[in-house]
Amino acid sequence: MKASLKRMLIGRPLKSTELGEQKLNKTKALAILSSDALSSVAYGPEQILIVLVTVGAAALWYSIPIAIGVIILLTALILSYRQIIYAYPHGGGAYVVSRENLGVNPGLVAGGSLLVDYILTVAVSVSAGTDAITSALPSLHDYNVEIAIVFVILLTILNLRGVTESASVLAYPVYLFVLALFILIGVGIFNVVTGNVPSDLHTSIGTPVAGLSLFILLKAFASGSSALTGVEAISNAIPNFKEPAPVNAAKTLMAMGGLLAILFSGIVFLAFYYGITPSATSTVVSQIAEVSFGRNLVYYFIQGTTALILVLAANTGYSAFPLLAVNLSKDKFIPRMFQIRGDRLGYSNGIILLSLAAILLIIVFNGTTENLIPLYAVGVFIPFTLSQTGMIVKWIREKPQGWVTKLIINSVGAAISFVVTIVFFVTKLPAVWPVFIFLPIIIFAFHRIKKHYDSVGPQLRLIADEEIPPIEGNVIIVPVAGITKVVRNSLNYAKSLSADQIIAVYIAFEREDTRKFEEQWKKWQPDVKLVTLYSPYRSIVQPLTKFIDKAERLASKSNYQVSVIIPQFLPKKGWQNILHNQSSLLIHTSLLYRRNVVLITVPYHLQK
Amino acid sequence: MKASLKRMLIGRPLKSTELGEQKLNKTKALAILSSDALSSVAYGPEQILIVLVTVGAAALWYSIPIAIGVIILLTALILSYRQIIYAYPHGGGAYVVSRENLGVNPGLVAGGSLLVDYILTVAVSVSAGTDAITSALPSLHDYNVEIAIVFVILLTILNLRGVTESASVLAYPVYLFVLALFILIGVGIFNVVTGNVPSDLHTSIGTPVAGLSLFILLKAFASGSSALTGVEAISNAIPNFKEPAPVNAAKTLMAMGGLLAILFSGIVFLAFYYGITPSATSTVVSQIAEVSFGRNLVYYFIQGTTALILVLAANTGYSAFPLLAVNLSKDKFIPRMFQIRGDRLGYSNGIILLSLAAILLIIVFNGTTENLIPLYAVGVFIPFTLSQTGMIVKWIREKPQGWVTKLIINSVGAAISFVVTIVFFVTKLPAVWPVFIFLPIIIFAFHRIKKHYDSVGPQLRLIADEEIPPIEGNVIIVPVAGITKVVRNSLNYAKSLSADQIIAVYIAFEREDTRKFEEQWKKWQPDVKLVTLYSPYRSIVQPLTKFIDKAERLASKSNYQVSVIIPQFLPKKGWQNILHNQSSLLIHTSLLYRRNVVLITVPYHLQK
Repeated sequence: MKASLKRMLIGRPLKSTELGEQKLNKTKALAILSSDALSSVAYGPEQILIVLVTVGAAALWYSIPIAIGVIILLTALILSYRQIIYAYPHGGGAYVVSRENLGVNPGLVAGGSLLVDYILTVAVSVSAGTDAITSALPSLHDYNVEIAIVFVILLTILNLRGVTESASVLAYPVYLFVLALFILIGVGIFNVVTGNVPSDLHTSIGTPVAGLSLFILLKAFASGSSALTGVEAISNAIPNFKEPAPVNAAKTLMAMGGLLAILFSGIVFLAFYYGITPSATSTVVSQIAEVSFGRNLVYYFIQGTTALILVLAANTGYSAFPLLAVNLSKDKFIPRMFQIRGDRLGYSNGIILLSLAAILLIIVFNGTTENLIPLYAVGVFIPFTLSQTGMIVKWIREKPQGWVTKLIINSVGAAISFVVTIVFFVTKLPAVWPVFIFLPIIIFAFHRIKKHYDSVGPQLRLIADEEIPPIEGNVIIVPVAGITKVVRNSLNYAKSLSADQIIAVYIAFEREDTRKFEEQWKKWQPDVKLVTLYSPYRSIVQPLTKFIDKAERLASKSNYQVSVIIPQFLPKKGWQNILHNQSSLLIHTSLLYRRNVVLITVPYHLQK
Repeated sequence: MKASLKRMLIGRPLKSTELGEQKLNKTKALAILSSDALSSVAYGPEQILIVLVTVGAAALWYSIPIAIGVIILLTALILSYRQIIYAYPHGGGAYVVSRENLGVNPGLVAGGSLLVDYILTVAVSVSAGTDAITSALPSLHDYNVEIAIVFVILLTILNLRGVTESASVLAYPVYLFVLALFILIGVGIFNVVTGNVPSDLHTSIGTPVAGLSLFILLKAFASGSSALTGVEAISNAIPNFKEPAPVNAAKTLMAMGGLLAILFSGIVFLAFYYGITPSATSTVVSQIAEVSFGRNLVYYFIQGTTALILVLAANTGYSAFPLLAVNLSKDKFIPRMFQIRGDRLGYSNGIILLSLAAILLIIVFNGTTENLIPLYAVGVFIPFTLSQTGMIVKWIREKPQGWVTKLIINSVGAAISFVVTIVFFVTKLPAVWPVFIFLPIIIFAFHRIKKHYDSVGPQLRLIADEEIPPIEGNVIIVPVAGITKVVRNSLNYAKSLSADQIIAVYIAFEREDTRKFEEQWKKWQPDVKLVTLYSPYRSIVQPLTKFIDKAERLASKSNYQVSVIIPQFLPKKGWQNILHNQSSLLIHTSLLYRRNVVLITVPYHLQK
């Protein structure tokens, strides 16, 4: 039943050899890996205006130079990551680059930031998309959290079905969104050029603004830069591309950068030219669309695809998180289970952990995750800075052909990213301080895990010619609850093993019970030694473990191995288990974690 | 840690021989077993007035004849249960009486009703007490459910500490409540006798009332009878009394009956004489107290003890439920675990189940459990009727000395109980219909459980001279994950058992892995047969169980026993378990429930 439900939800299991078919072509890869970056166009320009309008509407023209700054940063990042893709064609992105060139700890800072960041991506974008939907349908507003969780579960199932299948589904909304924005921007610019829009809606560029500080400008720039989150995702996910993977990944990255630049600058320009001020009830994109088209079908098409892409932006997290986890796991910084491929060849454990963490965030923040956006942006710019710096070190060390150009590109990227990171910390400290708490905790945990794995290896490795004491003989202990078929079954098995000694142990809750049972036993099994233990506190486990402990100490002196036979009574139906005291399980668990004793479970299946 | 926390909460474990010290004297028994019955005085009279006032204030004088009816019913019940106590001195009350004299199903109806009823007792009285407290402190009103749950948990801990200890704590509030009501009634009657109260506050008895139907009178009577719930508790709990238990129980029962009669009639009389009408904002007891004393210290004393006893009424459920469960469990109608005495010699499983069920009810009904009161009353009057009828049958069958008197007492009790039950069904169907659903379900479950236990006995019992096929030889299968110390450890153990064949099984996820491993193995363990299985779907459990299944089928043909050695890797600290794939546990669970295969867990403890 469970297996068929699983098959229905995520499809038939795939053979390991079918892995090749689970690779992405450029069109699909662009869709699932750029949804996060592209969706930021829907709120990035608005973030700039929100900061500027605190000074006054006259300051809004500053959005143009700020946008130019963002585009320069975007160009530097895209070119830098393109170099990273070629330099590290097996993926891993910021984590691998930083670890290789800057050292383990910078690598872990980058990797840890990104891990947390992808969780935030999922939580923030699903919440934002849900908000967009429930704003249109206010009757659903009370169920924000539930709807968001349902979206996360749907994304989980889609991603568990495998990367090609999710890409096929997600490609449509992503390209529809791009189409919608192209229409919006195209019509807008046409109107501007043909003079259909009055040219006095905005203050002209260069108008002096009173009270505008550098702090405000930097804050606006940092806010606009949050549109660049998600740019690094492709570099993490190279292994998902069809061969030649690095070439395809690089081309996809360039395409994404181009699209992002066009859409971002188009929206900023139109918002400026139309003199749009940010409003609590209508987004900037919605205002531009309304001015251009009125509330007709095109308007709703733009709004609908925008809401959809906000939800789907989460999918970038699903594409990048599991692969980053594999890299960290291979280096033993996180549990090995993240390297296991699921039925559909995706790294299911990473997908499931990401979903659970995102759902937890959505519940804890009650669906209002906007306050997490700065945290999320800073979590991206730390690895941006580290990876560019890593590349600088790499070029200086290796000095390959044309390294000076490469060095310049990465230096510009590193410098701007660093500035943006600092601006985030300075201007948005009240929102980003948790970084200083969770990053050290995560890095501490990484090291603890690594230390454990490192210590396990030598403990398991066989050393040639190493002498180990042989097992000289076997003592088998059989706890018995009475004279029944179950006990006979266990004793028969014990006898078949030709052990040196078999000891039956009976635990009596009443003193007079002891003698009576001993007499019965002598008649039934005269050749098996019986030990009766009186348990005044009615515990079975306690006197038994005490006895086994003693036996084990004695036996180990002469290299005898103690084994305990635990008869396991198995009723025909699952529910019937609650009708039997689960002593077997209790004994099993309490002995397993304490003693160097072999536990032998002899099943006794009930027939009806 | 867990053990010391448990010890702090419920005290040191007690030896079985200390059971004698866990018995109650009459004073303490009265306190914990009558809190339910006595607390009903706080709302029983009010229930009568609420029904009557629907016709008009003139109808209130009918409370006097109705109260006389309730007192007659109380007398009949007390005398009947006194006879039950002597006839069934080992307790069990309505369940045992009905089962012995009327048959199994009537017994189960009585037992099932009471089980559910005690759960309702706890939920209803804790909620009522919480309401009383949050009415006085309205700022706590939002936390009704949480407070009620805390009360249930406190009662659970108290009862897990043992019956004497809970009785010692609970005796004070119960007797304070009795004292408070005696003061109230005494002062009230003194005022009436000395003429301090005007005698025209009430319509005189016998005044004709227009629109008063028999239906209303019966409904008022049934509502008043709900004050009699809890009367049966002592007959269930005889084993908790000091010796001579039946004599002490009977005396306690008579004392409870006397107190209940005095308090009930006193409150009804004063309410009538003072012309009190039920109000939404002030209870009848509170109104009487206010008229008699004004809002002074005595008034708050009466109100405080009333709130307290409402919470403590729940304790009657805790005293009676576990003992009833023991009786049902001994007859195999509910799981055996209800017969296990906990550390403090109480039947902990009954106590814990009762608490969980009550908490569930409180949560489901969001703390407003008043609607459950009629259900709860009908759940008491069904066993009342059945047990009295059972006694009638017993007297007619056995005809002991003086049986005619005994017969008359039980007949009166049975007749009135039956009438009250019918009245409940007729007048309060919208509230009591769930009885028709849950009683059949419970009785069905009882029979299913009994059937299972009955089928288990013969399957376990040894039949003399029965031939069983001996185990002719042993095949030991060792799943191996590589060439490590863990595997060597398991193989050494397998070899020490002198099995007829040892087979190592290796599961490869990649084809080329297979040959490589086989070569390594041949060098390392040339004398142990290796089987390699290729798993294209990357599952370990599936190919392994398939192989074991095949081996088991082959082996069983010649009476060979298959055993599987599962190496269990045990890290030093608990948290490190998540760093290792839990294949051992997975294999253990999936093999245990499916095959007739012995599972041998060989521990490998990591040293660091």
